[in-house]
Amino acid sequence: MEYLAEFVGTAILILLGGGVVAGVTLAKSKANNGGWIVITLGWGMAVAMAVYVTGQYSGAHLNPAVTLALASTGDFELALVPGYIAAQMAGAFTGAVLVYLAYLPHWGETEDAETKLGVFSTIPAVRSIPANLLTEVIGTFLLVFGILGINANMNPIGEGDANLAALFGTGFAPLLVGLLVTAIGLSLGGPTGYAINPARDLGPRLAHLVLPIPGKGGSDWSYSWVPVVGPIVGGVLAAQVFGLLGFGG
Amino acid sequence: MEYLAEFVGTAILILLGGGVVAGVTLAKSKANNGGWIVITLGWGMAVAMAVYVTGQYSGAHLNPAVTLALASTGDFELALVPGYIAAQMAGAFTGAVLVYLAYLPHWGETEDAETKLGVFSTIPAVRSIPANLLTEVIGTFLLVFGILGINANMNPIGEGDANLAALFGTGFAPLLVGLLVTAIGLSLGGPTGYAINPARDLGPRLAHLVLPIPGKGGSDWSYSWVPVVGPIVGGVLAAQVFGLLGFGG
Amino acid sequence: MEYLAEFVGTAILILLGGGVVAGVTLAKSKANNGGWIVITLGWGMAVAMAVYVTGQYSGAHLNPAVTLALASTGDFELALVPGYIAAQMAGAFTGAVLVYLAYLPHWGETEDAETKLGVFSTIPAVRSIPANLLTEVIGTFLLVFGILGINANMNPIGEGDANLAALFGTGFAPLLVGLLVTAIGLSLGGPTGYAINPARDLGPRLAHLVLPIPGKGGSDWSYSWVPVVGPIVGGVLAAQVFGLLGFGG
Amino acid sequence: MEYLAEFVGTAILILLGGGVVAGVTLAKSKANNGGWIVITLGWGMAVAMAVYVTGQYSGAHLNPAVTLALASTGDFELALVPGYIAAQMAGAFTGAVLVYLAYLPHWGETEDAETKLGVFSTIPAVRSIPANLLTEVIGTFLLVFGILGINANMNPIGEGDANLAALFGTGFAPLLVGLLVTAIGLSLGGPTGYAINPARDLGPRLAHLVLPIPGKGGSDWSYSWVPVVGPIVGGVLAAQVFGLLGFGG
Repeated sequence: MEYLAEFVGTAILILLGGGVVAGVTLAKSKANNGGWIVITLGWGMAVAMAVYVTGQYSGAHLNPAVTLALASTGDFELALVPGYIAAQMAGAFTGAVLVYLAYLPHWGETEDAETKLGVFSTIPAVRSIPANLLTEVIGTFLLVFGILGINANMNPIGEGDANLAALFGTGFAPLLVGLLVTAIGLSLGGPTGYAINPARDLGPRLAHLVLPIPGKGGSDWSYSWVPVVGPIVGGVLAAQVFGLLGFGG
Repeated sequence: MEYLAEFVGTAILILLGGGVVAGVTLAKSKANNGGWIVITLGWGMAVAMAVYVTGQYSGAHLNPAVTLALASTGDFELALVPGYIAAQMAGAFTGAVLVYLAYLPHWGETEDAETKLGVFSTIPAVRSIPANLLTEVIGTFLLVFGILGINANMNPIGEGDANLAALFGTGFAPLLVGLLVTAIGLSLGGPTGYAINPARDLGPRLAHLVLPIPGKGGSDWSYSWVPVVGPIVGGVLAAQVFGLLGFGG
Repeated sequence: MEYLAEFVGTAILILLGGGVVAGVTLAKSKANNGGWIVITLGWGMAVAMAVYVTGQYSGAHLNPAVTLALASTGDFELALVPGYIAAQMAGAFTGAVLVYLAYLPHWGETEDAETKLGVFSTIPAVRSIPANLLTEVIGTFLLVFGILGINANMNPIGEGDANLAALFGTGFAPLLVGLLVTAIGLSLGGPTGYAINPARDLGPRLAHLVLPIPGKGGSDWSYSWVPVVGPIVGGVLAAQVFGLLGFGG
Repeated sequence: MEYLAEFVGTAILILLGGGVVAGVTLAKSKANNGGWIVITLGWGMAVAMAVYVTGQYSGAHLNPAVTLALASTGDFELALVPGYIAAQMAGAFTGAVLVYLAYLPHWGETEDAETKLGVFSTIPAVRSIPANLLTEVIGTFLLVFGILGINANMNPIGEGDANLAALFGTGFAPLLVGLLVTAIGLSLGGPTGYAINPARDLGPRLAHLVLPIPGKGGSDWSYSWVPVVGPIVGGVLAAQVFGLLGFGG
């Protein structure tokens, strides 16, 4: 059930998250030119809704950077890591296929090939690998630090993290995690489009590669490792620092 | 009381939901050109407020696709289905009449006939019946899947669904359902304007037909079955898949 | 303490509500051209914050239409009505003076006299007294119907309304009432600017009359009765209908 | 731990808050021209997230005006004031350095020196020291008055303020404080850019002074005392008036 939940949750995340980029950027969409508030609220609510549906079953990581960060501090079982990541990647791929289907008539209406790739994967505003990597590290650091902080806040100090799947993903916390993602998008999304999640970027990039999108260009593989490595580094660092500083009881 | 609640709730839904489209699109409105964020937040809060008022009496389906989806899994009594749907249709019609009255001086100020129809019913951005149908199926699938997931999240696993009217529509859940509708609008509303509710589209279309709107055009009946069939298919499918996957305990 | 709370709450409401209109419309303001989402979220959060501060002391009516609606059903003591309304009017006047002070350098920078009046009081988009009156009736009907519905939802059926001051204005409900006001603004604010509150319109109109605003025009007294009478009619009607339909237990 | 929490919380506040200004104003950012709603929601969520992470450890003042206001009424220990303020200043400086790093390639892409300063510190729309000071006093008055009101609302009357660190910053209240900051920004941010926090303005101004930002101008020290003095005056005044009026039990 955990793997199924991660698969379904990440598919919902990308269907709504990729969908909002499609809505704002593809030609003739009614949401066209909806602006940055639409993009960031769309991604935030995508996360919240995906967590509400799946949180009680798998803890709703939906993100390899979260899975690896929790594993790095011993708060998540190592044996489950490969299955979680595989489910997240497959879910993200599936969500991207659903975005493709939901916006079927709009791919042919849209001229620009980079706009089409941008529905699937992040493209930096100014291409500079070290700087882009740093931005993804900072953004994902804040994501994982914030998730851990929200979790600690929602649960009494000293209760321990024994039951992370139950703690995460129920009640009020999923909405807060969604608003955290909205906050990171509003504030730190400008330079790279805030992947902050390897599955969110790589899964849809594979979908972009294989789907019969009219007038598509390349899938920009030379950049593809940045939104994988940056989030993993940032997420693991955040979990370590969070523990070192003594937050979370 | 259940039927009355469905009637009142759907009227509130359409008064606020149709109202926000009127505000953003009709000439000389102070909300004119308010953008996609206004449309989607307006519809989301329309749902939330309608559910707060009526949730404890009828479960606040406010949508034949929700009623039929719950009936298809045995979570809603078949004998109540016709009455619920009739009340939803009548409520939607009434809400549309109220929108007409609230924006009375603006119909004559607005040139374009399609803009006026768009206040009442959805019009696809690119007309392609199979694709439009698919978009409505995907959007409503997510709506019903999300409602069931929020409901399961708000209630302990294993408690069963014995008292759905009480579970839905009280406390924090109505706001979440409203934010789910905002999320679907932000992300999947671009191609068809996200009817995701047969009553929301067909009731106001009938109002458009009979109301003395200056300079109105046809009510586009050739498209009218798409936002009826698509949502029903998507909603029933979602309830079946939700159960099959073992979500909801 | 009740009167003081109504005074302070209505002052906060108008300081934030009038402030957001000043921010979006006055020349050289950093919020200039912020759009309808800024206006409607600003007014909604103005209500929410005013209710959080004062709800537990006076029930946070902050609106003569709410006070009269509750009095009309016997849910509010008649003897307190004059004091509540006087406090609301004085609070609204004071809030408008504070808006004037907070935006001091911007009145001289702004050319248009109607823009300046619009910070204080509502101006219909298309002037048509019967239609404008109807819009205010519908909007305030929804406001009071929604407040009563939220209150009923937040409290168990059958508990009665014995302690309205305690029920209103604490916990989660104030945010919902703020979001209700945002919803009404988004959806029904287009034609008249949604006064839906006699004090909100008349108090600041008096402030506009007496304040030394550079380059101000008339205070449009010929329209001033519409946002007083419309909200009172709509509010009282809503409370009566709410009871008649059997909502609220 | 209290000082560490204030340091971390203020760093998060400025990373997200300064970040959203960078996103909306720096050239080539994907959030460029996102509008006032992006700025104000970004700052509000910055506050909310910073409070969620640190509230249970230090009460999450994150603002010398809050610290001094609480100290002025005896609700906060005087001996802790210098350490709190030092930690807030250092955190704000650190957050500004992180914004600089997250937006590294965009400083050189941006022409205007004032735009770059505006990412760090507030600049009045119309420079008029007495008026700017008054606006900051009014805004911070509302901030502290609102925080005290939210705190009183979230806790039963008569329970006293014995455990402010525990009362503030846990559960639902941090989101409300964030929305309060959004409300103040929407409504009162137009004239001065709403510092309403000496550390938020002075810490990043020092960072602007020392960081190697390409094409930067002066740090506008002649204005720098206004967003320090105004907030302190407004905050202390609010705490005094709140107590005098008998709010808060």
